[in-house]
Amino acid sequence: MVGPRFSFTLHATDGKARTGTIAMQRGAIRTPAFMPVGTAATVKAMKPESVRATGADIILGNTYHLMLRPGAERVARLGGLHKFMNWPRPILTDSGGYQVMSLSDLRKLTEQGVEFRSHLDGSKHMLTPERSMEIQRLLGSDIVMAFDECPRADRAKDEIAASMELSMRWAQRSRAGFDAGDDHAARAALFGIQQGALHEDLRRISADALTDIGFDGYAVGGLAVGEGQEAMFGVLDYAPDMLPADRPRYLMGVGKPDDLVGAVERGIDMFDCVLPTRSGRNGQAFTWNGPLNLRNARHAEDTGPMDERCACPVCTTYSRAYIHHLVKSGEILGAMLVTEHNLSFYQALMQGMRDAIAGGVFSRFTKDFRSSYLRT
Amino acid sequence: MVGPRFSFTLHATDGKARTGTIAMQRGAIRTPAFMPVGTAATVKAMKPESVRATGADIILGNTYHLMLRPGAERVARLGGLHKFMNWPRPILTDSGGYQVMSLSDLRKLTEQGVEFRSHLDGSKHMLTPERSMEIQRLLGSDIVMAFDECPRADRAKDEIAASMELSMRWAQRSRAGFDAGDDHAARAALFGIQQGALHEDLRRISADALTDIGFDGYAVGGLAVGEGQEAMFGVLDYAPDMLPADRPRYLMGVGKPDDLVGAVERGIDMFDCVLPTRSGRNGQAFTWNGPLNLRNARHAEDTGPMDERCACPVCTTYSRAYIHHLVKSGEILGAMLVTEHNLSFYQALMQGMRDAIAGGVFSRFTKDFRSSYLRT
Repeated sequence: MVGPRFSFTLHATDGKARTGTIAMQRGAIRTPAFMPVGTAATVKAMKPESVRATGADIILGNTYHLMLRPGAERVARLGGLHKFMNWPRPILTDSGGYQVMSLSDLRKLTEQGVEFRSHLDGSKHMLTPERSMEIQRLLGSDIVMAFDECPRADRAKDEIAASMELSMRWAQRSRAGFDAGDDHAARAALFGIQQGALHEDLRRISADALTDIGFDGYAVGGLAVGEGQEAMFGVLDYAPDMLPADRPRYLMGVGKPDDLVGAVERGIDMFDCVLPTRSGRNGQAFTWNGPLNLRNARHAEDTGPMDERCACPVCTTYSRAYIHHLVKSGEILGAMLVTEHNLSFYQALMQGMRDAIAGGVFSRFTKDFRSSYLRT
Repeated sequence: MVGPRFSFTLHATDGKARTGTIAMQRGAIRTPAFMPVGTAATVKAMKPESVRATGADIILGNTYHLMLRPGAERVARLGGLHKFMNWPRPILTDSGGYQVMSLSDLRKLTEQGVEFRSHLDGSKHMLTPERSMEIQRLLGSDIVMAFDECPRADRAKDEIAASMELSMRWAQRSRAGFDAGDDHAARAALFGIQQGALHEDLRRISADALTDIGFDGYAVGGLAVGEGQEAMFGVLDYAPDMLPADRPRYLMGVGKPDDLVGAVERGIDMFDCVLPTRSGRNGQAFTWNGPLNLRNARHAEDTGPMDERCACPVCTTYSRAYIHHLVKSGEILGAMLVTEHNLSFYQALMQGMRDAIAGGVFSRFTKDFRSSYLRT
C-alpha cells in the first residue's frame, strides 16, 4: 500500500459546514461521509460491490460482534476483515464499548475495563482499552476507535462526569495500546471520543483531555441515545467547535436524514448508522420526499419508483407496486432492494451536501431539503 | 416481439439424451434446461439480472401463489409478470393444480375443478382448467401448463386411474381455454401433463390422450412426490418414449443434480425445482464433489471456495470460512451467496450435459459426474 497513513484536507467551508477528503492507504474518504454499518462482517442484505456502487467510501465494523463471532484471532488468521468480507477500502471499527453496555449480559465495570457474558452463548469475556486496541488491530481496522464508556444521557451529572473521566483515562490507555501495535499503527488511524452527555462544561473537559493526548480524528460520543433531536442539536451547537478544526469530527450512531443535515450544518464530517439498512429490511424507504412505508396498501398498484428523484438501480428498475408485494410477502429481495435504495439515498444526500458546501450554497440546500423531506 | 411463437430444434442426441433449442418470442431456451423457481414473482434472494448471469434462459412462476398475492388481475393491470418482476425472458407458469392440493386448506375436488381456501388469509377460491388458463394469460406466461390433478403416487391404482382420466378431460378443457385467449395463444405455448404415477399402462393411456389433443410440449407429472429416485427412474425408463420425440419433454419438480443427470439420460429436456434456491437459504451448497453443509464447523477456517471447479462470482470471491460465518450468523448475504452459487452450479451442470451430448460423450460425462458427485 502506498500514500499517506492519514491526512485530512479541507476543500471548502460554508458556515460551520465543511467538505474535504481523508486520504488513507486503502482509499480516500469524501467528507461529509456516511459509513454504512457492517456489523457482522456484512452490510446486511448487500454484496460489498453493491455497497461501493451506492457511493460508500468506508464502512463500519463492530468490534463487539466480531470478537464474539467469528472471533478477532480467527479473522486475523483468515487474512483480516477486508479480505474476509471482500471490502478492500477503509473500514472503521468501533471499540466495543457502546455495544458491550447495550447488548451483553452480566456486565461488571471496573477501572480496568468491562467483564461481560456474550449475548450469543453466555461465554465470559473481558474488554479493556488494551484488548479493544488488540482486537481492532487483529481485524485490520483502518480507523480505530478509542475504548470508552457511553452512559445514558439521563444519568445524574456526577455520574456522567465520573464516566467521562474514566473514558478519558481509557482514551490515554487506548492511545498507548494502539501505538504499541507497530505495524498496524504505521498504517491505521486512531480517533478519540468526546463524552459528557448534555453538559457543556463536561464536553469541554473531555475535548481538552483528548486534544492533549492527540488523535487523528475526534468523535462526538454519547448522543443518539434517546435524548431527541433538539437536545442533540443543542450539544452540536458547541461540541464540534471544541475539537481541533484540522481533524475530522465524527458523530457516532447518527442518524435520520434530517439529523445528518443538521449535524453537517454544525460542523460534523462523518456519520454511521444502522437506520438505512435496518429500515430497508423492514420495508421503510428514505426518499427526498420523506420516509415511505412500502407495506402501505396505497402502493399496491403504484407503478412509480420509490423515489422519483433517485437514480439508483432500484428506482430506475422497480415499481412501488412490486416492492410492496415483496415486502408484504416477506421476500428477501424486498429487503435487498429497499436496503440498496436507502444506502443510495444516504450517499446521494452526502454528495448533495458536499457539492452544496463546495459551491457555497449549503443554506439553500438545507432549505430545499427540509421543504421537501420534512414538508416544512 | 419477433420470431417464432414456439419451435423446438434438436441439435444432437446421444443415446436417449437430447440437446436442442426452444425458440420463443421472448428468447431462446437451450435444452436440457433448468428453470429456477420464482414462486412469488421473485427467484428468492436473487436479483433477476443475477439469475440471468447464472445462465438461466427461463424461469418458473407459480400460478397458485400469484393468484393469491398479488393477484392475477393486479399483475395484468401492472403490465404482466415480466415487467412486474423485471425478467424479460421466457417464463413458464404451472397450472396451480399441484400447489392447490399441497398448500391450500379445505379443498373440494369436483369434475368442474377445485374449490379451496387460501393458506394466506382463508379466502375462498376456485381453480378450474378455464380459470387456470385465464390466470396464466393474465400473468403473460410464455409456457402455460395444462390444469391437472397430481395424486400421491401411493394411492390405489383405481384412484390413480380415475385421477389421470380426470386430468385428461381437464387437459382437453385447458387446450380449449388456452386457444380461446386469442392474442395470448398467438405468442405463448401450451404444455400437457402426463399422469399415471408408477403404472406403465396408465402412463400410456395418458400419453395417447395428450398426443391426440396436441400440445407444444409434454410434461411428465406425478413424480418427485416421495416415490424415491429408483422408482422415478423406473418410470422415466419408458414414460418419455411415449411422448412425441419432436416436442420438449419436461420433468416437473425435479430435482437433485443426480436426478437431472439420470433424467436427461432417459430423454428429458426441461426441469424445475426449488432445491438450489431453498437449499441456498439453508446453507446447503451443491458442488461437483457433492452437497456441502456450510453450517459444519469444519469450514470455519477454510479459505477455499465452496467449489474448486466452479467459476461463479461467489466461488471466485468468497471463502468457505466467510460463508460459514454468514450462515451461522443468519445473515441474508449467506442466503444470497449460496443461492447464487447453487443456481450457477445447476446451470453449469446443464451446460456440461448440453456440451457432452453435442460432442457425443454423454456417457463419459455421466460417469465422471457420478464418480465425483456421488463418490461412486
